[in-house]
Amino acid sequence: MISGFIAQYGGNIISLHEHVDSFDKTFFLRVVWDMNGFDIPGNELDGAFNPVGKKFNANWSIRYTGRKLRIAVMVSKYEHCLQELLWRQRLPESAYEIPLIISNHHDLQPMAAYHQIPYHVFPITKENKDIQEQAELKLLNETNIDAIVLARYMQVLSKSFVDHYPNRLINIHHSFLPAFMGGNPYKQAYERGVKIIGATSHYVTEDLDEGPIIEQDIIRISHRDSVNDLVRSGRDLERIVLARAVNLHAEHRILVNGKKTVVFQ
Amino acid sequence: MISGFIAQYGGNIISLHEHVDSFDKTFFLRVVWDMNGFDIPGNELDGAFNPVGKKFNANWSIRYTGRKLRIAVMVSKYEHCLQELLWRQRLPESAYEIPLIISNHHDLQPMAAYHQIPYHVFPITKENKDIQEQAELKLLNETNIDAIVLARYMQVLSKSFVDHYPNRLINIHHSFLPAFMGGNPYKQAYERGVKIIGATSHYVTEDLDEGPIIEQDIIRISHRDSVNDLVRSGRDLERIVLARAVNLHAEHRILVNGKKTVVFQ
Amino acid sequence: MISGFIAQYGGNIISLHEHVDSFDKTFFLRVVWDMNGFDIPGNELDGAFNPVGKKFNANWSIRYTGRKLRIAVMVSKYEHCLQELLWRQRLPESAYEIPLIISNHHDLQPMAAYHQIPYHVFPITKENKDIQEQAELKLLNETNIDAIVLARYMQVLSKSFVDHYPNRLINIHHSFLPAFMGGNPYKQAYERGVKIIGATSHYVTEDLDEGPIIEQDIIRISHRDSVNDLVRSGRDLERIVLARAVNLHAEHRILVNGKKTVVFQ
Amino acid sequence: MISGFIAQYGGNIISLHEHVDSFDKTFFLRVVWDMNGFDIPGNELDGAFNPVGKKFNANWSIRYTGRKLRIAVMVSKYEHCLQELLWRQRLPESAYEIPLIISNHHDLQPMAAYHQIPYHVFPITKENKDIQEQAELKLLNETNIDAIVLARYMQVLSKSFVDHYPNRLINIHHSFLPAFMGGNPYKQAYERGVKIIGATSHYVTEDLDEGPIIEQDIIRISHRDSVNDLVRSGRDLERIVLARAVNLHAEHRILVNGKKTVVFQ
Repeated sequence: MISGFIAQYGGNIISLHEHVDSFDKTFFLRVVWDMNGFDIPGNELDGAFNPVGKKFNANWSIRYTGRKLRIAVMVSKYEHCLQELLWRQRLPESAYEIPLIISNHHDLQPMAAYHQIPYHVFPITKENKDIQEQAELKLLNETNIDAIVLARYMQVLSKSFVDHYPNRLINIHHSFLPAFMGGNPYKQAYERGVKIIGATSHYVTEDLDEGPIIEQDIIRISHRDSVNDLVRSGRDLERIVLARAVNLHAEHRILVNGKKTVVFQ
Repeated sequence: MISGFIAQYGGNIISLHEHVDSFDKTFFLRVVWDMNGFDIPGNELDGAFNPVGKKFNANWSIRYTGRKLRIAVMVSKYEHCLQELLWRQRLPESAYEIPLIISNHHDLQPMAAYHQIPYHVFPITKENKDIQEQAELKLLNETNIDAIVLARYMQVLSKSFVDHYPNRLINIHHSFLPAFMGGNPYKQAYERGVKIIGATSHYVTEDLDEGPIIEQDIIRISHRDSVNDLVRSGRDLERIVLARAVNLHAEHRILVNGKKTVVFQ
Repeated sequence: MISGFIAQYGGNIISLHEHVDSFDKTFFLRVVWDMNGFDIPGNELDGAFNPVGKKFNANWSIRYTGRKLRIAVMVSKYEHCLQELLWRQRLPESAYEIPLIISNHHDLQPMAAYHQIPYHVFPITKENKDIQEQAELKLLNETNIDAIVLARYMQVLSKSFVDHYPNRLINIHHSFLPAFMGGNPYKQAYERGVKIIGATSHYVTEDLDEGPIIEQDIIRISHRDSVNDLVRSGRDLERIVLARAVNLHAEHRILVNGKKTVVFQ
Repeated sequence: MISGFIAQYGGNIISLHEHVDSFDKTFFLRVVWDMNGFDIPGNELDGAFNPVGKKFNANWSIRYTGRKLRIAVMVSKYEHCLQELLWRQRLPESAYEIPLIISNHHDLQPMAAYHQIPYHVFPITKENKDIQEQAELKLLNETNIDAIVLARYMQVLSKSFVDHYPNRLINIHHSFLPAFMGGNPYKQAYERGVKIIGATSHYVTEDLDEGPIIEQDIIRISHRDSVNDLVRSGRDLERIVLARAVNLHAEHRILVNGKKTVVFQ
């Protein structure tokens, strides 16, 4: 067993979470241990663990908490989600850094400049979309990006782009999915007369708004709220929900289970 | 103006709420005033107010808080919502009483007996549905019922039945509408992998699960929760959301605005 | 290690939670495993595990999920918490049963009768308190009670009584502790003008309202709410918070850590 | 009556909220009306309304929504609350602007510079406190400041300073008041083992942490959270609660009722 392997080489388990999907009998495990005093050096660890992983026929990977995840943010014109992430990545406890911002507009350049982060503009039209996405992928690759966050990026990415970052492309949708998929969810919510609105952060798949959900939250509204009021209240929700999802991803707390996620808080 | 009318006859306003629907310019008003020292007796009030209502081309009605609303509950086999309502109607502050329970099953008869409330069973089949609904309507009518609450009643009512109680027939749906309409919403929620589940109380219209929403609430769930766990957690939500909606209705705090509600808390 | 012990005898781990208190370096562990196919029979398990527990200098105990916890409820005149627990103990998934209700008043006798549960009345005066508590303890002992729930029981229990049920005596306090300790918390909350009220379930210790907190929750209020409104809203909170705490206790999910609790959800 | 006065001069009421404090029989009213087509020009309005106010022996004031409230922010070294307010004051719907930041430290100067807002540093020692507060008051006065927000300002203001801004000095306290008054509330919360932490925004009075509460909110925590985790989670709460309180104040939605507030949402 995994905990046996860690004990055998003098490792000290810091935290351990497990989950059994009782429907399809899959077992999920996340173990964090201290490398101080551990007999196997980091660069030999994958090799040493390989027989254990094989024995259990496991999908496994080993990540190092000392290294910050490199996250690229894609934005359009809304600043609230970007600002939230830029602020958080500077916090000492942050598990990620943001070395790159990509946008289809120039509007948020000054905010990037203030945070001294490269900001690249790739305007998108129907005609140039393929070429621009190729250029974006090249840039992402050259910058050694681990994951991408769509911080209210108002373009649909092509399947081919999405396929480069499976379970590493995080979106924020401004509704309580699966309610109000597609465009203008606040207007939809207003028209339906709901008493609560939500926001959902999920991994992007080729099916729009249907990827595995990472995090959701809600706020209460009333008949007094106009569509604009919902937009304003929703901004606070979107950025908090997205920031939580990015934290969880950067701390390697999410295991994808088919169309769902296992989130070890 | 309405407040002028009340002042003119020596009425003391206890509370006043208004709302303007800025989209279609409808004005909603709820005024509560003290009849002590009011110059017009209750039985002449409708007539006296009529000219004011006409002048403003208003849909209006006058209700008396001293009189408890008479609510019939329709149930099947789940007891949690019924129990909640039976407990609450006995509270001294309750604005409603429950003089009648209708069910398509015998299961909850003992609970009704404990509360000394008549419990009538109308088994429903495809063949007898029309006849049974007619009998139910007759009974409801004879019992002077003001409003009906479907407390997890597992039968779809016919349009003709629904039409007898416009904006007076309250349902609880065990999802965060409009997500997971239709059957088995907890299973749907489980399969979609949402992180939050909800319950929605709404007026019943002929379009299933699409009537004006009165109240909603949610609880947080996780990947650890099975469908059964959702059912169990959801029970607490359903009964609280339904009870709040029934309270709001019985206290005449809800004005229906097309497919939406104005709720004056 | 514990998981090694379980594996050695053919046990299948169903769930495992751990927690390290980083302040005083205490390690907490809860493991659930399947006794089907486990090589050690239940009646030999304590003995077999003893050497493992000793080796780690652990406080440990083994509980069986198949056996329902026997809980006595102590009440005065408020019915909402008692009703909640009586309803829940009848649910098929309940981890506890209620074979005994003790009260200092006769008021809730009919509710106990409806649920066919013995209801014993011990009126308390300053003079007879010691004698009555002795009689209660005798009855609790004869009924093989595992834990006691104070469901808005309006008497302070003596230290000597409390000492008989360490970490097995659960109370509900109608405030967000440590705010508004002592009497009349809703009145205190009203006078302070808070925008949110709460309820707290905790283990009872000799220091009133200072025992280890098991569960808390809150609801939003406003300037419109009178003290009576707070009492009414609070009832919904109290019974839900208490019911959650009793569930957690009955499912053996709580480990007491000094003046705090570790709760494995 | 007030609505009569407005009607008399051709005003169109946009919103109206009232509240009766049933304890001391005080009546609170907030009316918003459209000045388009109103017969009395803005500069004569106070005079024209005076007789009405006198007749009802009312404390009244008239504010203009077209004019943004001028708010000064006082900070020390924590940036999260300041950043939140700076972002919001730039939103088109903001009812306030921030023409001045005062600090006892230089740390947040760059953030002020990015937003092009004057940032004045007044280091505080026991010896110079009186003189520095006098200088601050002079600067606040010269800048025509309507209200002051303490955005985690780590100095206690003197009674004399506080008296200059009655009900116009807003603080954020990082606990669910009245729990955990005074210093280090997150440490206090950790040690008490609460399951929920909160934040409270209130008007500052000479009694520390006892001023009228404007807004509160909470988040759920668990035994897993260290004091540092509480600090991190609490930051999100503090800035949101403070921002809501500042919005409410700037939109003139708060009426102070002794030691409490009436908040017309």
